[in-house]
Amino acid sequence: MHVDIGAALGTVAEPGIDEAELEELDERVAEAHERIAAGRGDDEFGYAALNLPERTDADAIREAVSPVSDAEYVLTVGIGGSALGAKTITAALAEDPERHVVLDNVDPEHVERTLSDLPLSETAVNVVSKSGTTAETLANFLVVRDVYEYRDVDWTERTVVTTGESGPLRELADEEDLPTLPVPDGVPGRFSALSSVGLVPPAILGVDIEELLAGGADAADGLGPSLFETPAYAYGAVAYALEERGAAVNAFMPYAERLEVFAEWFAQLWAESLGKEGRGQTPARALGATDQHSQLQLYRAGPRDKVVTVVRPRERADVPVPDAGHESLSYLAGTDLGELLDAEYDATVASLSAADRPAVEIEIDSLDARSLGELLYATEAACVLVGELAGVETFTQPAVEWGKRAARGLLSGEDTEETRTVDERPSYLISDGD
Amino acid sequence: MHVDIGAALGTVAEPGIDEAELEELDERVAEAHERIAAGRGDDEFGYAALNLPERTDADAIREAVSPVSDAEYVLTVGIGGSALGAKTITAALAEDPERHVVLDNVDPEHVERTLSDLPLSETAVNVVSKSGTTAETLANFLVVRDVYEYRDVDWTERTVVTTGESGPLRELADEEDLPTLPVPDGVPGRFSALSSVGLVPPAILGVDIEELLAGGADAADGLGPSLFETPAYAYGAVAYALEERGAAVNAFMPYAERLEVFAEWFAQLWAESLGKEGRGQTPARALGATDQHSQLQLYRAGPRDKVVTVVRPRERADVPVPDAGHESLSYLAGTDLGELLDAEYDATVASLSAADRPAVEIEIDSLDARSLGELLYATEAACVLVGELAGVETFTQPAVEWGKRAARGLLSGEDTEETRTVDERPSYLISDGD
Repeated sequence: MHVDIGAALGTVAEPGIDEAELEELDERVAEAHERIAAGRGDDEFGYAALNLPERTDADAIREAVSPVSDAEYVLTVGIGGSALGAKTITAALAEDPERHVVLDNVDPEHVERTLSDLPLSETAVNVVSKSGTTAETLANFLVVRDVYEYRDVDWTERTVVTTGESGPLRELADEEDLPTLPVPDGVPGRFSALSSVGLVPPAILGVDIEELLAGGADAADGLGPSLFETPAYAYGAVAYALEERGAAVNAFMPYAERLEVFAEWFAQLWAESLGKEGRGQTPARALGATDQHSQLQLYRAGPRDKVVTVVRPRERADVPVPDAGHESLSYLAGTDLGELLDAEYDATVASLSAADRPAVEIEIDSLDARSLGELLYATEAACVLVGELAGVETFTQPAVEWGKRAARGLLSGEDTEETRTVDERPSYLISDGD
Repeated sequence: MHVDIGAALGTVAEPGIDEAELEELDERVAEAHERIAAGRGDDEFGYAALNLPERTDADAIREAVSPVSDAEYVLTVGIGGSALGAKTITAALAEDPERHVVLDNVDPEHVERTLSDLPLSETAVNVVSKSGTTAETLANFLVVRDVYEYRDVDWTERTVVTTGESGPLRELADEEDLPTLPVPDGVPGRFSALSSVGLVPPAILGVDIEELLAGGADAADGLGPSLFETPAYAYGAVAYALEERGAAVNAFMPYAERLEVFAEWFAQLWAESLGKEGRGQTPARALGATDQHSQLQLYRAGPRDKVVTVVRPRERADVPVPDAGHESLSYLAGTDLGELLDAEYDATVASLSAADRPAVEIEIDSLDARSLGELLYATEAACVLVGELAGVETFTQPAVEWGKRAARGLLSGEDTEETRTVDERPSYLISDGD
């Protein structure tokens, strides 16, 4: 992996970071690295995530999915970190990403349509909930089971469950003797892509999960005490320094369709890990070149509160643009779609510099399992570093509990502090009156 | 449409808006409305967009698409405002949204895979570029033509072009005598969903485009001089007031899978119209309930720089959650996925209030053509209002031109100010050395 911070230097961008400041920051990176290494050494909560490449048992995953290894589709039932890692990996690497169908929401119309479109007898079901109590996941799983039964297809032969050692989902799995995989100890959902939580659908759909883990291991091996030698830390340190200087938004913009979901995964990782105690960059998901025609105006000319992270693979497929024989299109003749996309990428970075706005470039060698494993791991390491530098509890998400209790209370009709807040919330309605 | 600003009031949120401030703001809304009405009256550049519901000729669209009305798939070739409106409408309303396939990027691997998966003889091609010179669109169209020819399918019988009166795309269309539709005069791409730019794919895929336009006309009729009587203005005025008080981010979070693309459309509308002169809210695309497990931690506990806009339909499909017979899941027994989703929505708004963070609620009657037309139009009107209040040029996007010139220069190998900036941009590379 290659991180270029040239377009984030104070000489070209405001906010930007000076080389002298980088040197100072590097001392703090060394301290943070020591903390991270100690946490990994003791398999501490959260830090344990950075040990996944060596801990994850790919053989156990292959064995658990062997009954469904010929499935045409995989239906993941999960939400948040229990779905997004797997979705990110199959979107990037599966030969046909559409064979991975994800129910990570409880929109009734969508659930109904999704299930009615699927050939259930050729569909494996991958149910994931760490706690085994997640309302959306349990509700969807009950609906899925019911639809299989209604269509007279045996779901028990096609279902793999990944969950903790106890809880309702574990009980449902044990009742039917389903193959189960453990969630790794001490790893929050958003850091679990490189475990059974993220690897079941890729394994079924022919992704080389061993190479993904090897890529993660490469990145793990590369973690050293200096940002000048560790791309993951270079990214994290610069993101942190820019946030301190006013870059409240991190616009994450891959130039590859297959990394569009990666931007969503990044958004969860960044928001849920770092958004606490009144701080944390807001991740904005974007896609190059498409969003040049949507978000770039704002990035170049709006508030100076952003850093744009662009990501691309160094290799692309070869699709030449045919010559139309038109003078006005002559600049396209002899080019290739990949060349065009790379020209747009270069132009975007330079156009931000021309407007004194910071950008950071991340390049991977190619869009393959090894590089993606490295990118996933390095991004997690960058996030952990930012958490250390900012002094926040990277691995918890206390602010979401209130809403979970409220929703559960509303459904069960209980009278609690949360449900009362919901019932009594102020309304000021402006309506068109129909 | 119904806009509830109760959760954005100063009594519950910081930043928030007091009722007295609303009264003051309403005077400015009245002035802005007068400006907007005058612009509409004279069909001025940009303001003309708000006349589309009455100007758009649905019959002409129906006629242009009649040769391809039985197509199984529609392939849109366009980017930015030339693709996003149509994609938003088919995602929300088409019986099967997957029948609308969009090439709005030039990723070679993606373009190749998309085309190889499509049954070309059953696929209509919808090419859209206002200027007729958009590099990404022209390049993709040339590739698409070539693939049709290679597979011996006549693309000229299946292609509809929407473009301006001159330019390369117009020439390519005229050469082959393709059915063409005009882009409406004086309407920027991001405001053109309710014109031929946005309505061709919906028309082919069985969406009631007349009802969409009727919904837009309803919203147009409802525009009055007071925010207290105009939901669109209430939304715009509150978004503006909160931005002034520090809500630099507008997290747009529909609670409906079919509105996920609408959030992307909103993001373009908001960013490109209002992101100028150092100001403009950054739109953050989210989806409820999914992003409660991803972004909500940040929204509740991160910086006080956000307003969360939640959107939902008042009607949902009926999908009961089967009873699992487990004590620990008893709160789900007898509920319905829609009830669960609505409980999550209520819980999210209240959880933001409980953390003193502002939210605005938008409800539509149901997810049908009439309500969507109303929502599209009202959101555009809200955006125009914010532009008036902020004093920016809502309808231009000058900051994207630099990058377009740079990309074009790079492809043609010219030596220009832009290409020199690209070539000479500073690099500071941290690499893992493989």
